[in-house]
Amino acid sequence: MKETNQPFGLIGVVGLGLIGGSIALDLQSLGLQVRGLTSRKESAIKAQCRGLAQVVSTSPEILKDCDLIILALPLNQLIKPNKKLIDSLPEEAVITDVGSVKEPILHTWENLHPKFVPSHPMAGNNKSGIEAGARHLFKDRPWVSTPNSKTDLRALSLIKEMATMLGSKWITTDAKSHDQAVAFISHLPVIISASLLSMIQTQTNKDLYFLMKELASSGFSDTTRIGGGNPKLGRDMSSNNTSAILDGLDLYKTSITRFEKLLTEKNWSKLEEELKNTKKIRDAFFPS
Amino acid sequence: MKETNQPFGLIGVVGLGLIGGSIALDLQSLGLQVRGLTSRKESAIKAQCRGLAQVVSTSPEILKDCDLIILALPLNQLIKPNKKLIDSLPEEAVITDVGSVKEPILHTWENLHPKFVPSHPMAGNNKSGIEAGARHLFKDRPWVSTPNSKTDLRALSLIKEMATMLGSKWITTDAKSHDQAVAFISHLPVIISASLLSMIQTQTNKDLYFLMKELASSGFSDTTRIGGGNPKLGRDMSSNNTSAILDGLDLYKTSITRFEKLLTEKNWSKLEEELKNTKKIRDAFFPS
Repeated sequence: MKETNQPFGLIGVVGLGLIGGSIALDLQSLGLQVRGLTSRKESAIKAQCRGLAQVVSTSPEILKDCDLIILALPLNQLIKPNKKLIDSLPEEAVITDVGSVKEPILHTWENLHPKFVPSHPMAGNNKSGIEAGARHLFKDRPWVSTPNSKTDLRALSLIKEMATMLGSKWITTDAKSHDQAVAFISHLPVIISASLLSMIQTQTNKDLYFLMKELASSGFSDTTRIGGGNPKLGRDMSSNNTSAILDGLDLYKTSITRFEKLLTEKNWSKLEEELKNTKKIRDAFFPS
Repeated sequence: MKETNQPFGLIGVVGLGLIGGSIALDLQSLGLQVRGLTSRKESAIKAQCRGLAQVVSTSPEILKDCDLIILALPLNQLIKPNKKLIDSLPEEAVITDVGSVKEPILHTWENLHPKFVPSHPMAGNNKSGIEAGARHLFKDRPWVSTPNSKTDLRALSLIKEMATMLGSKWITTDAKSHDQAVAFISHLPVIISASLLSMIQTQTNKDLYFLMKELASSGFSDTTRIGGGNPKLGRDMSSNNTSAILDGLDLYKTSITRFEKLLTEKNWSKLEEELKNTKKIRDAFFPS
């Protein structure tokens, strides 16, 4: 790492959407120097106006002095990175990504850069684009890394330090387990949630549709939040973690059919028992 | 209405759980006099300690001077109210309820009390019991009423005034339409959300289960919130709005199978199009 007065040296953030923009804002607030790279001139101007980085550019040249680079790009661009980007990454810089499917990313990058650390924060909201980045997005959220035997341990420890400084809870696991886990708790819920929204729209009785819109409150809002999220992200996670999501969908359909049977059979005591059980599971996942 | 220095006279709240407790707290903060009725001595003591009402009792006698009474009881107790409670309601008092299935409640009460107004707030969270009541639960939430031709219009207007004072958005519709609408946007989501939690638990690989628990973040939290809610409430809404929920489940299964097909066929452009559409629906339901 070059000598600077900053613990991380100069930091490059590639992509200034929700995740990249939020990382860049938080890092700056910690007194760090951030260079932001975006693909379009228009985005660069907006990013500069929003102060997402001290310097914003559309030229990969901007990365040449960076000591730490965060690739905050859409999943497909992480799995199939363009040559110009690869060529602009200094060999001595530590590189990490923010993609939510780790096996294909690790597969691509383990042979592309000696100091690549596969990682990503478990955080997000319904916003996207250059206007989306916001402070404190990662506070108290998991930040997971999936190193393998080739991963540079000093690079790994630097990314851990950065994630911790952003307020995240650091977790390490292997890429395959990670992808299975997020298929169930992150990618499948997008499909479940989107299916509910899609089904509501099949409602041909317009009065009923408008009444639903008027009455919809926090329960419907929460259940549909991620189904109404970034469509491109939903597509990318589906196309890159397909078989794990399909396994999840299969189990989910069995689960929903079991609940349907309880309603059809009017087995209310068993239904209440099941709901006591699901409450117990959720309380264990999110102790208040 | 008796002469008091309060616009609503003396208010009785029957049941001091999440909804009743929250109503009672907000009404008191508006300077109103509230009498709280609970069924168990222990709850009455706790409610008194929490200051949920100025006077708390386990004796229905407490309602005898009330001008407005809110029945904040579980759905089944609203549909089959006990005789002691019915007998304790003054004939000149205005009565409303908070039950989320209106047809059976209206059916019961339209012949029981001349000033009964069927209504309920679309609000809640994962808490229940005497500890759950909190201020501002109804702010900016819909409060829906389903009067029929027998409903006393002055009583209706009093309940509207109360709901508005609690910060709610007043909506009027018929009981049948209401029950259909909430089946889709409120009751069905409970089953959808619970099915996800239940399916996660079928995961026999313990390491994966613990990893899911570590990685679960806001997306999983939101999608599972209402599936981890009050089991008794879930049972009651299911048993009292069964056919509308089953209709919804049928449509929902079709919707989820359609998404599954897109994943199986790897039809990513169509999937992205569908997700753009679901985003549009949600943005229309909840404009930010």
